[in-house]
Amino acid sequence: MKTAAIVGASGYTGRELLTLLSRHRHLRASVVMTARAGAAPEPAAFPNDPKIDALDLQRLANVDGVFLCTPHGAASEIARAALLQGKKVVDLSADFRLRDPAVYARTYGAAHPAPELLAEAVYGLTEHARDRVRTARLVANPGCYPTSILLPLLPLLAERLLDASAPIVADSKSGTSGAGKAPSERTHFGNVHENFCAYGIGTHRHVPEIWQEARTERIVFVPHLLPTFRGILTTLYLTPAPGVSADAMRSCLHERYAREPFVRVYGGTAGETRGLPELRCVQHNNQCHIAVAQNGPLVVVVSAIDNLQKGASGQALQNMNLMLGLSESDGLS
Amino acid sequence: MKTAAIVGASGYTGRELLTLLSRHRHLRASVVMTARAGAAPEPAAFPNDPKIDALDLQRLANVDGVFLCTPHGAASEIARAALLQGKKVVDLSADFRLRDPAVYARTYGAAHPAPELLAEAVYGLTEHARDRVRTARLVANPGCYPTSILLPLLPLLAERLLDASAPIVADSKSGTSGAGKAPSERTHFGNVHENFCAYGIGTHRHVPEIWQEARTERIVFVPHLLPTFRGILTTLYLTPAPGVSADAMRSCLHERYAREPFVRVYGGTAGETRGLPELRCVQHNNQCHIAVAQNGPLVVVVSAIDNLQKGASGQALQNMNLMLGLSESDGLS
Amino acid sequence: MKTAAIVGASGYTGRELLTLLSRHRHLRASVVMTARAGAAPEPAAFPNDPKIDALDLQRLANVDGVFLCTPHGAASEIARAALLQGKKVVDLSADFRLRDPAVYARTYGAAHPAPELLAEAVYGLTEHARDRVRTARLVANPGCYPTSILLPLLPLLAERLLDASAPIVADSKSGTSGAGKAPSERTHFGNVHENFCAYGIGTHRHVPEIWQEARTERIVFVPHLLPTFRGILTTLYLTPAPGVSADAMRSCLHERYAREPFVRVYGGTAGETRGLPELRCVQHNNQCHIAVAQNGPLVVVVSAIDNLQKGASGQALQNMNLMLGLSESDGLS
Amino acid sequence: MKTAAIVGASGYTGRELLTLLSRHRHLRASVVMTARAGAAPEPAAFPNDPKIDALDLQRLANVDGVFLCTPHGAASEIARAALLQGKKVVDLSADFRLRDPAVYARTYGAAHPAPELLAEAVYGLTEHARDRVRTARLVANPGCYPTSILLPLLPLLAERLLDASAPIVADSKSGTSGAGKAPSERTHFGNVHENFCAYGIGTHRHVPEIWQEARTERIVFVPHLLPTFRGILTTLYLTPAPGVSADAMRSCLHERYAREPFVRVYGGTAGETRGLPELRCVQHNNQCHIAVAQNGPLVVVVSAIDNLQKGASGQALQNMNLMLGLSESDGLS
Repeated sequence: MKTAAIVGASGYTGRELLTLLSRHRHLRASVVMTARAGAAPEPAAFPNDPKIDALDLQRLANVDGVFLCTPHGAASEIARAALLQGKKVVDLSADFRLRDPAVYARTYGAAHPAPELLAEAVYGLTEHARDRVRTARLVANPGCYPTSILLPLLPLLAERLLDASAPIVADSKSGTSGAGKAPSERTHFGNVHENFCAYGIGTHRHVPEIWQEARTERIVFVPHLLPTFRGILTTLYLTPAPGVSADAMRSCLHERYAREPFVRVYGGTAGETRGLPELRCVQHNNQCHIAVAQNGPLVVVVSAIDNLQKGASGQALQNMNLMLGLSESDGLS
Repeated sequence: MKTAAIVGASGYTGRELLTLLSRHRHLRASVVMTARAGAAPEPAAFPNDPKIDALDLQRLANVDGVFLCTPHGAASEIARAALLQGKKVVDLSADFRLRDPAVYARTYGAAHPAPELLAEAVYGLTEHARDRVRTARLVANPGCYPTSILLPLLPLLAERLLDASAPIVADSKSGTSGAGKAPSERTHFGNVHENFCAYGIGTHRHVPEIWQEARTERIVFVPHLLPTFRGILTTLYLTPAPGVSADAMRSCLHERYAREPFVRVYGGTAGETRGLPELRCVQHNNQCHIAVAQNGPLVVVVSAIDNLQKGASGQALQNMNLMLGLSESDGLS
Repeated sequence: MKTAAIVGASGYTGRELLTLLSRHRHLRASVVMTARAGAAPEPAAFPNDPKIDALDLQRLANVDGVFLCTPHGAASEIARAALLQGKKVVDLSADFRLRDPAVYARTYGAAHPAPELLAEAVYGLTEHARDRVRTARLVANPGCYPTSILLPLLPLLAERLLDASAPIVADSKSGTSGAGKAPSERTHFGNVHENFCAYGIGTHRHVPEIWQEARTERIVFVPHLLPTFRGILTTLYLTPAPGVSADAMRSCLHERYAREPFVRVYGGTAGETRGLPELRCVQHNNQCHIAVAQNGPLVVVVSAIDNLQKGASGQALQNMNLMLGLSESDGLS
Repeated sequence: MKTAAIVGASGYTGRELLTLLSRHRHLRASVVMTARAGAAPEPAAFPNDPKIDALDLQRLANVDGVFLCTPHGAASEIARAALLQGKKVVDLSADFRLRDPAVYARTYGAAHPAPELLAEAVYGLTEHARDRVRTARLVANPGCYPTSILLPLLPLLAERLLDASAPIVADSKSGTSGAGKAPSERTHFGNVHENFCAYGIGTHRHVPEIWQEARTERIVFVPHLLPTFRGILTTLYLTPAPGVSADAMRSCLHERYAREPFVRVYGGTAGETRGLPELRCVQHNNQCHIAVAQNGPLVVVVSAIDNLQKGASGQALQNMNLMLGLSESDGLS
């Protein structure tokens, strides 16, 4: 049995990791701490949860891996301390996702707190970085929106199935857990329930991350806030390269993900899942579901994930499993 | 005081009309009937509602106007009977929206039941058909999705602000009331609550209607089902014509709708509404709210309506007010 | 046309009054202000709303009536100023509900700010205080939970249909709008959606108000928080006096409320509403719906109101209409 | 590894069992069938689910245990066939809960289909029937409402802490999954969302079951329908025996459940959980949470369970684990 620390365990991604590790056969959460130094220990959010201790970096000495579920900016220093002690680190915050510290500074409004670590951080979209994750000391866990967009998009870009000059529209809809646990105007029940809206058009912090990983700035992203707790559904509008059909794109994705336990591509061949992804099919599991449909001159691709699992803690556990030499899907099936 | 009949009063659009007319100073619902001949009278859905009588076409003789809230296919015969009695008719079903009976047959899977009336039916997107509505005998009330798409789109097309060869993406999200009052798999609480999905990609019956009114088949439409009861929010992704900015599009819409009481364009000038439309700002009223934002190479336009008001019964009342010589906004402000 | 001021117009009850007055034929909101002196003017919450001016007591000189939608404690001083100017005042806060300043101090944790006004304040449960409301200068608008409990209970107590020694159980369930517009842990979407809980057992501030008006402390009240925005449903468990049946209680309520436009008693005679009250039948209207059912040794009474209308702003408008000599149901039907 | 059959796997309780068994280390679902003979095999409800085969009683020969997730009435015959083959059976339907076939006939409107099995069926409220469950061939899994009521109530009755002549009020609120997977008026999204109601007052089929197990007909039960998918919260209003306080009741429950992994009693001693149970603390787990509070002359007890786990499939798995000699909490922690 290996052991892990969860730093920032009182937030939604921290709690999700606690739940996942409670079912893991070879990894357990032996250290459970707050995200901020000086913060008082917290009672468990739920009666079944472990108590959350005050942050104490020395306690990282006793674990094999460290999950950082802190706000961006706060993760860097803890990551540095953990790496010095030889620990494997998966950072669920945004601190190590952007390779260029200037882009980080522009996006997050502050100088990067640990630029010396950026070069070695591996962007942990597991299905596209498995070998590098396996040997990494530090993994930057992808953002939730980027995960929902990159998983369907990267194979199509790699195979040059898209018109290289047309914009790529990514219309994403997310539940409120992506906005975190702290009460705010945006997440007030009276403002979310029986409501729906777009937000952050052209300004969302995940845009530079999506552009970096897709290697193109042609992606036009608009996030929306759903009156649900969990889940992201992204609808992509793609202009195919000349002669490319929806079927070709679907086949490309089928082939790319045929042996991936956490990505399912719908339709196309006998016996395959029909229909379109729905949030409820991916909530509380680590799956990404993808469907492809022709629609006039465009190809529509729909992807669905649970933002707290495949979009955060589930993918983080995939990565940690690999880094610790465990089976990638342990605790996730 | 003028009088109206509501045929099909037990459905959601019929009930909404009952609510609207209960506050109207110059028009009241004097005849309230079921949609189908032979159907038994129904008890009121809600304790405050009037009883719903069995369908009896002779009773239309005593009213000034007739609202048809029936399923498509069932409206035509009633419309014919009402017109013969010299009544003004607003049809909320799809029977008279498509001008070409061949398109109707292809879309709705049956020959058109009253093709002789198609020529005179006016497509009642009120802000774009006011003069024709005023003198019409028969108004085809627009579909809910088309209303949310056409109101922001038509002025931009008319002013040639869009790239004439690029696709127009309309990503729409609707509450469940659009699916009607009858229980179904799709509207089962366990299938909607804490869920979200796309549906009907490339096959939704509103597509021919949108194409007809926009006079282009470049519109790529994908509807989605929200876990809300009321409201449609549409996100349009538009390729501007060379040299056209989001500001120019916003100004075009401001100018077009400056004197319209039921369309509000956000932003752009001092004192204007900031931010983005949300469903809750248009629920239970007859407004369409529109915002415009640049997003990389595209311009994003967000529109929001209440599908049961501006997308159905509210717009129907606008039209009937005009047809009966009343003030257009009576019962709607 | 008479005029009213709304003080505290940015909260939920203030906004509801704005909506109601927008449909009122003889009363309009001519002054719309914040609840607190020194607060900046606020932009309208919704694009259709009027702007909310800074609090200015001198502007009350120009209106006929004043609605106070302020937090408790803040209403008293404004009420005093308005009464000095000869205005009719309906206070939606808790300041004038409790007749005994010692009970107020114990319940709200501060000395009463205007004890000299307590004697003349009329507790405005309209159906039970109509004549006194008509001539009152100052009406204390009842709390939402008390309204849902007292309307079904008072006639049964008055007619001595209940066992005088048995406890009266009031199990109430409320939507979140009762908790107000300010974000909090309790009203965070992630804490309300797909959740349900009891709260404030034995300590809720409405208990002394219920006891005062029912003239008995035998009422055992437990509030619960529903994942809805609007509505309160109360389930009362009553021990009948010897020989009294559910039918007798229902008849008592039928008789008491037969001519009341805003109270509907279900069942019992031919043609009456069957079934049980549901929140959706009273949302967005000023009704209280009541049903009575035998259940073993007890009689169960279910009542439903919209907490923002009959439980707050609707009842406040009933009261103001009476105080200004208007028709009681103006703006409410 | 032992094996189980799930008969009726397409319903909510069947699916929940599939999820639970997918995490079980010593029991797996090797046979997954429809509830009705002649029903076609069904595609999986969710893409991750196994296909559901047509009902074939001969296939029960190959498993160790059988879960019956069928409608009431349909379970008996399958139970009989499974017992003949020497299998352990847990029936989640109502067929074997009532010991008296006359009460069954009155409650379910049909003669009991297998009265010869009633005598040996064990009512599987696990914490109160563990030894009998261990040796049983046939366990009747308790209803969801009865579970939420009996777990807090039975110890208080057994210790004679309640006034033996006073009514016991059980005001229960359930999510819609209790009403099953089939669309109906009751579970139509538009009828549940932003709504709340009581139903079945005095007529709910769980009443005879509650009375039988509590050995008293003084229990007055009213169920309500929450706009949630999962969970039951019951508020009990209890008249204490002379001299008995809420503290005494809480101590009784603490003592009774101190070593039970699936029942948690709040409050009372240092270090214990404070506050009141909420649905979200028990959703997706097999816990029953209980709190006790004095409220005037009565003691209020609040209990919360997930109706699909502790109220159905979770408790069924507790029972099956015991019957097969496995650890009771396997697959449930």
